[in-house]
Amino acid sequence: MTLNQPARNNLPRLPIGLIETAIASALAEDLGLAGDITTDATVPANAQVTAVIAAREAGVVCGLELARAAFSALDPAIEFVANTVDGSTLTPGQTVATISGNARAILTAERVALNFMGRLSGIATLTRRFLDEVAGTSATIVDTRKTTPGLRAFEKYAVRCGGGQNHRTGLFDAILIKDNHIAAAGGAKEAIKAARDHAGHMVKVEIEVDTIDQLRDVLPFRPDAVLLDNMTTKQLQQAVMITDKSTLLEASGGVNLDTVRAIAETGVDLISVGALTHSASVLDLGLDFKQSGV
Amino acid sequence: MTLNQPARNNLPRLPIGLIETAIASALAEDLGLAGDITTDATVPANAQVTAVIAAREAGVVCGLELARAAFSALDPAIEFVANTVDGSTLTPGQTVATISGNARAILTAERVALNFMGRLSGIATLTRRFLDEVAGTSATIVDTRKTTPGLRAFEKYAVRCGGGQNHRTGLFDAILIKDNHIAAAGGAKEAIKAARDHAGHMVKVEIEVDTIDQLRDVLPFRPDAVLLDNMTTKQLQQAVMITDKSTLLEASGGVNLDTVRAIAETGVDLISVGALTHSASVLDLGLDFKQSGV
Amino acid sequence: MTLNQPARNNLPRLPIGLIETAIASALAEDLGLAGDITTDATVPANAQVTAVIAAREAGVVCGLELARAAFSALDPAIEFVANTVDGSTLTPGQTVATISGNARAILTAERVALNFMGRLSGIATLTRRFLDEVAGTSATIVDTRKTTPGLRAFEKYAVRCGGGQNHRTGLFDAILIKDNHIAAAGGAKEAIKAARDHAGHMVKVEIEVDTIDQLRDVLPFRPDAVLLDNMTTKQLQQAVMITDKSTLLEASGGVNLDTVRAIAETGVDLISVGALTHSASVLDLGLDFKQSGV
Amino acid sequence: MTLNQPARNNLPRLPIGLIETAIASALAEDLGLAGDITTDATVPANAQVTAVIAAREAGVVCGLELARAAFSALDPAIEFVANTVDGSTLTPGQTVATISGNARAILTAERVALNFMGRLSGIATLTRRFLDEVAGTSATIVDTRKTTPGLRAFEKYAVRCGGGQNHRTGLFDAILIKDNHIAAAGGAKEAIKAARDHAGHMVKVEIEVDTIDQLRDVLPFRPDAVLLDNMTTKQLQQAVMITDKSTLLEASGGVNLDTVRAIAETGVDLISVGALTHSASVLDLGLDFKQSGV
Amino acid sequence: MTLNQPARNNLPRLPIGLIETAIASALAEDLGLAGDITTDATVPANAQVTAVIAAREAGVVCGLELARAAFSALDPAIEFVANTVDGSTLTPGQTVATISGNARAILTAERVALNFMGRLSGIATLTRRFLDEVAGTSATIVDTRKTTPGLRAFEKYAVRCGGGQNHRTGLFDAILIKDNHIAAAGGAKEAIKAARDHAGHMVKVEIEVDTIDQLRDVLPFRPDAVLLDNMTTKQLQQAVMITDKSTLLEASGGVNLDTVRAIAETGVDLISVGALTHSASVLDLGLDFKQSGV
Amino acid sequence: MTLNQPARNNLPRLPIGLIETAIASALAEDLGLAGDITTDATVPANAQVTAVIAAREAGVVCGLELARAAFSALDPAIEFVANTVDGSTLTPGQTVATISGNARAILTAERVALNFMGRLSGIATLTRRFLDEVAGTSATIVDTRKTTPGLRAFEKYAVRCGGGQNHRTGLFDAILIKDNHIAAAGGAKEAIKAARDHAGHMVKVEIEVDTIDQLRDVLPFRPDAVLLDNMTTKQLQQAVMITDKSTLLEASGGVNLDTVRAIAETGVDLISVGALTHSASVLDLGLDFKQSGV
Repeated sequence: MTLNQPARNNLPRLPIGLIETAIASALAEDLGLAGDITTDATVPANAQVTAVIAAREAGVVCGLELARAAFSALDPAIEFVANTVDGSTLTPGQTVATISGNARAILTAERVALNFMGRLSGIATLTRRFLDEVAGTSATIVDTRKTTPGLRAFEKYAVRCGGGQNHRTGLFDAILIKDNHIAAAGGAKEAIKAARDHAGHMVKVEIEVDTIDQLRDVLPFRPDAVLLDNMTTKQLQQAVMITDKSTLLEASGGVNLDTVRAIAETGVDLISVGALTHSASVLDLGLDFKQSGV
Repeated sequence: MTLNQPARNNLPRLPIGLIETAIASALAEDLGLAGDITTDATVPANAQVTAVIAAREAGVVCGLELARAAFSALDPAIEFVANTVDGSTLTPGQTVATISGNARAILTAERVALNFMGRLSGIATLTRRFLDEVAGTSATIVDTRKTTPGLRAFEKYAVRCGGGQNHRTGLFDAILIKDNHIAAAGGAKEAIKAARDHAGHMVKVEIEVDTIDQLRDVLPFRPDAVLLDNMTTKQLQQAVMITDKSTLLEASGGVNLDTVRAIAETGVDLISVGALTHSASVLDLGLDFKQSGV
Repeated sequence: MTLNQPARNNLPRLPIGLIETAIASALAEDLGLAGDITTDATVPANAQVTAVIAAREAGVVCGLELARAAFSALDPAIEFVANTVDGSTLTPGQTVATISGNARAILTAERVALNFMGRLSGIATLTRRFLDEVAGTSATIVDTRKTTPGLRAFEKYAVRCGGGQNHRTGLFDAILIKDNHIAAAGGAKEAIKAARDHAGHMVKVEIEVDTIDQLRDVLPFRPDAVLLDNMTTKQLQQAVMITDKSTLLEASGGVNLDTVRAIAETGVDLISVGALTHSASVLDLGLDFKQSGV
Repeated sequence: MTLNQPARNNLPRLPIGLIETAIASALAEDLGLAGDITTDATVPANAQVTAVIAAREAGVVCGLELARAAFSALDPAIEFVANTVDGSTLTPGQTVATISGNARAILTAERVALNFMGRLSGIATLTRRFLDEVAGTSATIVDTRKTTPGLRAFEKYAVRCGGGQNHRTGLFDAILIKDNHIAAAGGAKEAIKAARDHAGHMVKVEIEVDTIDQLRDVLPFRPDAVLLDNMTTKQLQQAVMITDKSTLLEASGGVNLDTVRAIAETGVDLISVGALTHSASVLDLGLDFKQSGV
Repeated sequence: MTLNQPARNNLPRLPIGLIETAIASALAEDLGLAGDITTDATVPANAQVTAVIAAREAGVVCGLELARAAFSALDPAIEFVANTVDGSTLTPGQTVATISGNARAILTAERVALNFMGRLSGIATLTRRFLDEVAGTSATIVDTRKTTPGLRAFEKYAVRCGGGQNHRTGLFDAILIKDNHIAAAGGAKEAIKAARDHAGHMVKVEIEVDTIDQLRDVLPFRPDAVLLDNMTTKQLQQAVMITDKSTLLEASGGVNLDTVRAIAETGVDLISVGALTHSASVLDLGLDFKQSGV
Repeated sequence: MTLNQPARNNLPRLPIGLIETAIASALAEDLGLAGDITTDATVPANAQVTAVIAAREAGVVCGLELARAAFSALDPAIEFVANTVDGSTLTPGQTVATISGNARAILTAERVALNFMGRLSGIATLTRRFLDEVAGTSATIVDTRKTTPGLRAFEKYAVRCGGGQNHRTGLFDAILIKDNHIAAAGGAKEAIKAARDHAGHMVKVEIEVDTIDQLRDVLPFRPDAVLLDNMTTKQLQQAVMITDKSTLLEASGGVNLDTVRAIAETGVDLISVGALTHSASVLDLGLDFKQSGV
């Protein structure tokens, strides 16, 4: 697998506090009340070591600041040097970060650091693969709310590192009207109107349709975007033709690495892919000791 | 894919408090400060509905209590009926649970409930597939510490639902001596001795070896188990022969659905599979409205 | 002061968990480790009472669910009957809620319940007064991020109860480009372009301008809204004329009950008022015992 | 408005942990999961800036350590120099603090810092205005428990910065017997006796009376203080005469800037003012960029 | 050991939230991520049982609500009947509470319930023994701040159950000037004056003295109480004579069950005993199964 | 009392986060919202001091890192020098630690630091006394789950500092089958088998027996250890003879400083002592000022 280098150079900052809290919680889970009893038994308290995190396979890196925080939580004196930046492609064997300091602390934090980085890098890598598939089209790959409970901020950041864009963060920051909402509101028109009445002027409104007829029905009410659910590429082409750039169109459903290019070539603006966050495999990263002493 | 029905009938309870805390945190993430603005805008406050969670593909179900807790957190009056039990196989289209009550509450909790169930059922399903591969051998499939940060208790429970067994929970409840520990302790013998001295009488000690020679070296010190790292099936067979049931043997590394049967047929007692928790795809579950009213 | 009855009938739900957490925290603050030592000393443990919360002055009520939660936290057996709904106008002396149950519990929760309701009702009342001032114009009164730390969700809800609309919730759900951002980005055009590139398709972009010239500069880049900062009513009129309904216009700065009508009559779409949340006086509510027994 | 310079030079320390927790919570509220998307989009990651917080109107400053903590939470490398001390009077335009460092961090923390300082300075300023009104009398201005939920420690500190004194912190640290307690206990005498029996020797007992007759009734039981509720200045004078310095007298009810001097001149020891914390307007403070670079 | 029945009939309520939080934290500590693996393995999920908590030795009971909360946290359907009330004396073998319900839940909560009750009953019992020693004198036995970190509210409640009285709760609710404070303030007089100036009118001031001369020095400044540190009974008598009931006197230091009566007989008002909370032995309580079924 | 010097030189690390959280919680308990009002009133803000923590009696020290964290939480600039290490014996008067820095901060943190150290040193000291009693035998002294709620990690660490060993940490890390479990499982054999089936390969299984016959019954099922509950020394000897080193034997019940040697001399491997954590007296430590200035 070869991945394109990212064009992105302006990644979002992860909000203050989220990293620290996530690392504390993950360490608590792994350390319990008794701590790392293997390391306490076998590694001298003052042993020093230099270790590297290296890629065992090709991919896109994500989560360096979480790894840094994991080691730092065990011992603030540990020196953590990132040898690359989030969003970069990795070749097998490439060094991702170099960590020097107390050997016990480094061994104890290792798994937490790798669990975060492996998972987020896996998401970034899968996102990049989707991007590479649609290269040359105008489609943007976006994520969904099908994220791991507790890790949404990090996983949406990983999608950005892969080159994708974020859909709404949660239920609170944008309106996405689905079939059940339309039914409850008494129709698409009523639903969009209710949404506009309810929400403030800084909230966008998107509505889901299943057919071209439904699309035609909703367009007069000027949604900010329309989600085309499980449509064939033929239907998607028709939708693009009908709207003629007047409204953002998002394709959704049945998207995978085999189908995404054909979908992108229909001319839709956005393609949302749940798999980016709910079914990415971990990227294989490992920690190796380089030199040790006391 | 056909999966065997589980023999397991005595699943662990998830510790009190963990479910409630995880659901509260996941809902907070999805609701933010403004809540579900789409549903608030479009669904009448007193609308009632009956919905079902159904399988969109075959698999093993896991996480019913988390789904129940998600709906209950939104509205304690919602009636949640589980139509199966955790660990059961599902056929495509099979109803997993039936939920009746306030339509707004059900819509708002839907994604959190499905995010948990989809992910855990995915792990249970992948575990079952590994079990099916090794059927008829004496090998037990076990998990690792390569779990999603924050979800370890649930993911280890999902492995149990799939029919697998749990390795140690964290760094705190058992000793697993790896190469870096052996190096730091000055040798395998010294490491096992230090571990026995350090730990209480209720703590088991396992040690990792890479070669048959190392295996021979450590056996005299009576570890409770030996982890055979990245060995060929030939080496594994040799290890089984040498130890002759005197010590538990765990194969690790390079395990996937294609290789696991050959590994199991070597006669090792345990096969640990990181992929169970770090690379399972979500099981596709959906929520459908059945009837609604006011 | 006479306030108009609200037209609003579809208030947002406060997200699950926020109320409970806020009440627990406020009670902890008031009870410390020793609890309500006055009541414990003087009121028999089994004394029963019926009390009412009544308005001491005219206003708009807000926060009934918080009051209910405060009493319920002390004793789930307390019966709390709301005699009105959030967003309704109150006349002096009007009964807002009736509470029956354990006298100790009611006395202990009283201040927390009133502190929340008084503050939120104060905000709703001030918002309503602004609305009454602009009655007949097309201007919407909106809030700002100048809220009390820790209470933003509640205060923005109170603005809704008063009949106002919410601006963005925080820094995370919409883009508002101010002078310092423009300077850092190298110009208004560059700032809007950077915002569009950075944000997902569900994020709106507003930009602040100080002069009519700046307004003319930014319009070609199609912001979703323009904030007109500290402009005279003459400038505002000019802005309305220039944009001719093509872009939402928000007036901001120097808005108070004396100036708001003239601002609204310029034809701007939105008027943001920091005072709604940063300088509202409490609405005077009191709790009176009606009958007591054992 | 001209305010007197404070005589107070020994303000309490805010307890360790409270500031950090409050800032973390306020930032979480403003940043959500996606963070400051405007600044991330428009301000280069390494831009540096010097900014000042300045008073837009006269008042008394309060909350410098909260502002410092807000900027420091975003970036510990930010240099925050306080140009005055809590409790000092400010003239319009006066510089309160100077902040240098990463431009993104400063912009992101700005609103949280100002929301705290504006609110607390508003309380300190209003307190000072009450103090100035009663200058030359022996009355002490004290606060109440009518504080913003979650901010009591800070608001009581702000009252101290304004020159006022604190009444009890909560229900737990002193006894204040009100009419409902008296009724439940079977009379004022019984209530005071029960209070003395119940509470330890380090707890003071105050009792509320509505009439001079009630005052005469309670004096023989030696309360530490008597709260005179909603009395006329004539009644207050009478109360002062009757007690003749033997017992602390606190006037309460109907206190505002117009009435407070007459109340103070009756000779009461204390005047409690709920408005200090429940109805203070924010003090207008702003953050201005002075110079910027990379 | 025979203990007197308590006269106390008006114990404080433990503040809302404290019990629930303490139980949740204690259960988390005992259950970790994997829960009660012994019970899960050996006890059928639907087994029902009736169990009793019984005294294995004589003492004073305390903590029934904590035990109730522990069982209820595991399963709200468990019926918990208290067979006595906090503060009552127990004879060996006496039944304290009867618990019926799910056998797994009862077994899992048992240790947490007993750890709380045993510890608090131990404190109540030791307090009662001190009270019995000073029976007939006018001395009150009071506690100190030498409590178990995290359990102060409960331990001070246990002292009340034993019949003792509480000294100040923490550093925040009363002033106790010790030798280092006097030195820093420049003398006892200066320290008391500074305390009066600093603190509000609802705060009491106590000062510690080591000698009779120091006592004479501080009396003119009217402290609310004087702590006589490590004085001989002769000195204590002298102190009582000098003050002649004008000021509360507290004896402290060197107090144990052998010395307390002589100290009480000197006529001091209060005797503070750190051992009540820092060195009480647990009261031996056990849980026995009575009948079980399915 | 003379205590032997410890042989132990490899104490466990306390897991990251536990110390900080415990100190924050203890300080919050002692400081409330108003803080240390005595010190704020009497000690100048910039006063500096050097103080020492000294032993008032002989014992074994434990908890130095908790004391360090308490002072550091108040003021990170405080210099804390440990003059000994956890697990060392102390002679009366011996200096344990030297603390230099801001006088207010040191006074405010004093009690929290001493409460932790006194309690943990008390446990370490009592443990050492048990060890000294069994010196020369092969018995190991182990703790139980009868710990103070919230402090288990620290108290088990204190037992280690005293020279004892830890039994299982909680219900989650090892299986201990007691009489009620045996009854529910339908017999000892069934219980052990269920335990083996349920638990992973890294979990040890211990079973409790009351009689020699029961011991004989369970041995064929190869438990990792057997707990001999409340047996006479004669029974214990018989148990040792029967098992002949094939299985670990733990004596439990009726163990105190008078009985422990006879129990140890029976040849049992382990003696568990609940009193180590549930009934240890505090070790008397004090903080003394050495020199002060500004």
